[in-house]
Amino acid sequence: MEMQIHPVAGVYLGATAAKIKKNGKPDLVVIELIEGTLTAATFTTNAFCAAPVTLAKRHLAEVSPRALLINAGNANAGTGEQGMKDALSSCAFVAAELGCDMTRVLPFSTGVIGENLPMEKFENGIPQAMAGLQIDGWDAASKAIMTTDLVQKLVSREVDIDGHRIVITGMSKGSGMIHPNMATMLGFVATDAKIDQACLQAALSAAVESSFNRITVDGDTSTNDACTLSATQQADMPEIHDLESVAYQQFAKAVKEIMTDLAQMIVRDGEGATKFVAVIVEEADSKEEALKVAHAVALSPLVKTALFASDPNWGRILAAVGRAGVENLDIEALKIYLGDVCIVENGGRAASYTEEQGQAVMNETDIDIRIVLKRGTVNETVWTTDFSYDYVKINAEYRS
Amino acid sequence: MEMQIHPVAGVYLGATAAKIKKNGKPDLVVIELIEGTLTAATFTTNAFCAAPVTLAKRHLAEVSPRALLINAGNANAGTGEQGMKDALSSCAFVAAELGCDMTRVLPFSTGVIGENLPMEKFENGIPQAMAGLQIDGWDAASKAIMTTDLVQKLVSREVDIDGHRIVITGMSKGSGMIHPNMATMLGFVATDAKIDQACLQAALSAAVESSFNRITVDGDTSTNDACTLSATQQADMPEIHDLESVAYQQFAKAVKEIMTDLAQMIVRDGEGATKFVAVIVEEADSKEEALKVAHAVALSPLVKTALFASDPNWGRILAAVGRAGVENLDIEALKIYLGDVCIVENGGRAASYTEEQGQAVMNETDIDIRIVLKRGTVNETVWTTDFSYDYVKINAEYRS
Repeated sequence: MEMQIHPVAGVYLGATAAKIKKNGKPDLVVIELIEGTLTAATFTTNAFCAAPVTLAKRHLAEVSPRALLINAGNANAGTGEQGMKDALSSCAFVAAELGCDMTRVLPFSTGVIGENLPMEKFENGIPQAMAGLQIDGWDAASKAIMTTDLVQKLVSREVDIDGHRIVITGMSKGSGMIHPNMATMLGFVATDAKIDQACLQAALSAAVESSFNRITVDGDTSTNDACTLSATQQADMPEIHDLESVAYQQFAKAVKEIMTDLAQMIVRDGEGATKFVAVIVEEADSKEEALKVAHAVALSPLVKTALFASDPNWGRILAAVGRAGVENLDIEALKIYLGDVCIVENGGRAASYTEEQGQAVMNETDIDIRIVLKRGTVNETVWTTDFSYDYVKINAEYRS
Repeated sequence: MEMQIHPVAGVYLGATAAKIKKNGKPDLVVIELIEGTLTAATFTTNAFCAAPVTLAKRHLAEVSPRALLINAGNANAGTGEQGMKDALSSCAFVAAELGCDMTRVLPFSTGVIGENLPMEKFENGIPQAMAGLQIDGWDAASKAIMTTDLVQKLVSREVDIDGHRIVITGMSKGSGMIHPNMATMLGFVATDAKIDQACLQAALSAAVESSFNRITVDGDTSTNDACTLSATQQADMPEIHDLESVAYQQFAKAVKEIMTDLAQMIVRDGEGATKFVAVIVEEADSKEEALKVAHAVALSPLVKTALFASDPNWGRILAAVGRAGVENLDIEALKIYLGDVCIVENGGRAASYTEEQGQAVMNETDIDIRIVLKRGTVNETVWTTDFSYDYVKINAEYRS
């Protein structure tokens, strides 16, 4: 790792290989949070949410957690009543070690859907992981939560909040959201900031909305997606408790930047991905219509296969914008750009456009598709990847 | 062709190779409709609709058409003002030959987006095509409207309407809607039935809604999609003019069957398709939610790659249903079936399910995925295909 990872005062991480993953790599992580830590969280909206998601929500509503328990290799999703019993038991193992109530443990699982958790592996693995709890455990933990990820996703930053230095460090896992059966995206961010629960949740929700909720590989949302933001209150600073304050604004901005980095790392690691694509919609009338257009383009298999081929196929982008369902779209007014090159204006191919210009943009790895709707003042960006042979290969052969 | 194609009294078709297609195959069709024929139509909802679509709508609103002009190889889409001028000129060529007003010609184009129509090829080709107008021209016409289609799509049926025999014959083109830049789906159906305009349009709209609007390969809708139903009034029968009559019901049912056959032929011919998949949603609360669930499953790249691999990956189907956006979905109540095999119940994998049962269904070419929501009485079916290496290959390499 070239990036310096700053430990977070009051956060201790332990990882172990509990043999939940078939390949024997580390797969179990416990994050202990010092007493007094506040934690905010967001969870998947998938109706089939996994047992650990249901339980984590319930525990978080009761009391501030002292520990996060994460396993990779088994999602404990689609497991019915037994799944909930197992999630409860796994929390009880951690609580017994810590000497706290089991409601103070939040469980997170990622991996294959539909298999029961191997509870004896949790029973043995949890004390092992907790024996190794350390303030410098981020690197090992970020590797242990990986499933099909090719690279670990770990970001850390020192931030000045109104003259006081704080630390924000976070990790995520997810290989492009392309594995809802490897139910998929998890993010764990911690800070030593002194901040109240309302401001913490507000900062997390805003950051997730413009980061994890703006990445898409194939439109699928997993049963296990979750993201937490824990604040240990250990920094020497006045408490942030006012959403209008400068300190809150600085904190929220820093959290958003960390989350955006973590989210973009997921897209870049999308399996089979050869391109990193920003679909930028400008001058929309509302956030809803901006996202409608952005997702129509970002999820179009025709646009995505053209991106894989580095083909400046402006007709496919135009057709995707046209079918996005924006009422009274003025096709004469809107403009579409590939990078800085205008490809569509006046309802068709831009007069100035040449295939060579488009090809030059498409040959890059990082590509911006910008759609200017000329309807209002709202801008939104979604990040995605191309569709490659490897996407089909990985997802067709995943279980074989 | 093994199927007998019944000519339709009053409908004459001519096809020629006008060299609009680069491969020199037939690419221009004129369909002459006897004076007195009524025509109903439906058109793409894509905001970027092509010039011929705009013009066909305008002409149809003014007067009953005497001719349909169809070219393959060039979609005349994304062509701005010049595109409209060319569409008008092409109608004028046909009108001059027929001796009628140019508003009585409806133009249809399919092929590459963004190139201007080669007008001299229309000027030369149209008289050639019209010199060969014949009542038995369906077979040749259905081949000439093909672009990347591997097989022609032609269906014909004799139908008894309240004791009177009529004929309905139709053709379509489209290779799985996977080519919005080969802007894509066209359907032309004719009958000798005696029927008024309102009943004709009602029968067409209902039929399209349950056929062409129920097929999807990749969620993309083209700039050129159109479907017409022409009734020459030549049959010996009382006019159908009452939507409540037995005759109308019989007619509408027959049109729906013809359109469903034509639509399913498009899915089966989807490029790269190795499976024909019916996604059946039952006991939904509304048509909207039934289609939301059906499309979430039918368009999920993860479900589609699993289908390609013949992998009974029930977790992906469950996750797609869960993210479809149905409010207050009762995951304990709903059931999901692969063929006749129950794969999901009580919120997870069905207790009775075995991988062998699922594999047996997945090994078939035709696969039913049935989702019983237990929320109401509405059923909807969507037809789709799998996602294969060839899908990526064909769409990545299409322009190279």
